[in-house]
Amino acid sequence: MTSPKLSRTAPSTVTATTIVSSQLSVQTPGAGFTDLTAEVATFVREAGAREGLVTLFIRHTSASLTIQENADPSVLDDLMTALSRAAPENAGWSHDTEGPDDMPAHIKTMLTATSLQVPVLDGELTLGTWQAIYLIEHRARPHRREVVLQFVGAAG
Amino acid sequence: MTSPKLSRTAPSTVTATTIVSSQLSVQTPGAGFTDLTAEVATFVREAGAREGLVTLFIRHTSASLTIQENADPSVLDDLMTALSRAAPENAGWSHDTEGPDDMPAHIKTMLTATSLQVPVLDGELTLGTWQAIYLIEHRARPHRREVVLQFVGAAG
Amino acid sequence: MTSPKLSRTAPSTVTATTIVSSQLSVQTPGAGFTDLTAEVATFVREAGAREGLVTLFIRHTSASLTIQENADPSVLDDLMTALSRAAPENAGWSHDTEGPDDMPAHIKTMLTATSLQVPVLDGELTLGTWQAIYLIEHRARPHRREVVLQFVGAAG
Repeated sequence: MTSPKLSRTAPSTVTATTIVSSQLSVQTPGAGFTDLTAEVATFVREAGAREGLVTLFIRHTSASLTIQENADPSVLDDLMTALSRAAPENAGWSHDTEGPDDMPAHIKTMLTATSLQVPVLDGELTLGTWQAIYLIEHRARPHRREVVLQFVGAAG
Repeated sequence: MTSPKLSRTAPSTVTATTIVSSQLSVQTPGAGFTDLTAEVATFVREAGAREGLVTLFIRHTSASLTIQENADPSVLDDLMTALSRAAPENAGWSHDTEGPDDMPAHIKTMLTATSLQVPVLDGELTLGTWQAIYLIEHRARPHRREVVLQFVGAAG
Repeated sequence: MTSPKLSRTAPSTVTATTIVSSQLSVQTPGAGFTDLTAEVATFVREAGAREGLVTLFIRHTSASLTIQENADPSVLDDLMTALSRAAPENAGWSHDTEGPDDMPAHIKTMLTATSLQVPVLDGELTLGTWQAIYLIEHRARPHRREVVLQFVGAAG
């Protein structure tokens, strides 16, 4: 069944009857990363989530979500640099009425994630050791951003 | 618990027992965006969805999904430009037997989304004011594209 | 309701009560694609999944997931080329203590997917004819990577 380079645990099955939703409001400091991991973990605890799926959905088109390294802050700096190289300001965009940072912000949103999922097992997010969940603000100025959190699965 | 820059509503909990699925067929006009938002909203209404998660999944590797601004059409033009700069034609690709637009189409698909999720609360998609759900056709010629819609949650 | 260019099947509804989870371990050969499709299909079969959603989540920030063409291997070569052009080595990254391939690996992960969903209908993944589910190793050397598989829906 499984090739030598793959191995998989036996499937575990539970009954799922619960959906828990919450809306998160995040004040960003302007362009950069805001770590949402602790807040999502708190949501999972409050929800009594045992096994299932947590979804994050950001309700904006100039800010986005990503799961990235939580250790060396220079990684986040370089990620911003990479996004700015992929979507530079003043690169001949036709949409420029909202400022030079607006169209690059839409492009950076398209290249990253608007919705993200993290499975929950044994009541814990299954994030890897080096993973954190980030909101990325792509506009230069601070903004208030809304993120919907939703757990679907077994709880209680 | 919550840092000053974060605030979150108390979790709301419901019982979820329903999955509703539908297959959407979209005739694209060639390269560009097709707005699926109204059709997904109709699906949510027909499904009687109250609280849960809508998934969109596109069954192709040269067309993709994104959630982007619904107001100024020049944003969509610039998004196409940005994708074409990231994946230009005639850039030394080894896969060229299906035409110069084919390999760029695969790259553009990889850089955007094949699956997307939007939470439903109080019977409504939680899209932000400026968000629309788009299918992006990356091939030059028109194509018929299939998108699976699926709601998981509380309905009826 | 539906515009001429859109058509959609009537929604089908089932009762969903099951979550099935499994952890997949993948030994990668170094930078490149590993096809997970057969393993995910086996998981769907073992889970008795009939209708619902399969989620894949990779627990790393220098390897990622994508759904791409399963036919011509030159497509995968070109996808690697496109990612290396978007995130070249030795491009002035400030994070360089883990080797020249590390920061590009984080960028490539950000530009592709950490979580992916594929709906299941009639007991089968709804992948299109040309779609395969791949893990992409972005580091130069082989690594052991962990992927969480989770089905939410109707089973048995």
